[in-house]
Amino acid sequence: MPAELVRLRASIDNLDAALVHLLAERFRCTQQVGVLKATVGLPPSDPAREEQQMARLRQLAQEAGLDPVFAEKVLGFIIAEVIRNHGTIAEQTSRPDA
Amino acid sequence: MPAELVRLRASIDNLDAALVHLLAERFRCTQQVGVLKATVGLPPSDPAREEQQMARLRQLAQEAGLDPVFAEKVLGFIIAEVIRNHGTIAEQTSRPDA
Repeated sequence: MPAELVRLRASIDNLDAALVHLLAERFRCTQQVGVLKATVGLPPSDPAREEQQMARLRQLAQEAGLDPVFAEKVLGFIIAEVIRNHGTIAEQTSRPDA
Repeated sequence: MPAELVRLRASIDNLDAALVHLLAERFRCTQQVGVLKATVGLPPSDPAREEQQMARLRQLAQEAGLDPVFAEKVLGFIIAEVIRNHGTIAEQTSRPDA
């Protein structure tokens, strides 16, 4: 295997570890958002907020040299998971005996 | 809107900006991997490497308190995009007149 490939893979592994830890921290935040929304009766999904997030991330991606369409797909995937989680939290909150 | 929600959303926006920049740097690395693979004639996909990456990330996710199944889905999504890019680079390299 070329030495250059070994070197690049070590960088990719470091970046992936950082990505996992950022995602873990992001889910800690959205978990709190889910509990808060369920407590005050806000719906799991907020299309206006999601549209703002997408527009901002497309812009950030473009500035960072990342394909904005790909950035949007990844964030859409993450947000879909978060909304599912919020729905589950809301169900558990409205049925505390469940 | 509750002040706590505003606070959490500001954290989520910061984390998302960091995620975008990490993803941009990851694609800079994989772009170089794609060129290197095409130059030395290695295939775009490397199932043994991908299996190692997945196992490592599941472990890291678990340690960080992130759902390992979700971490695996996100990484699988990113890797699929990378393999598509590698395939495109390989085609361009084998047909330099195209």
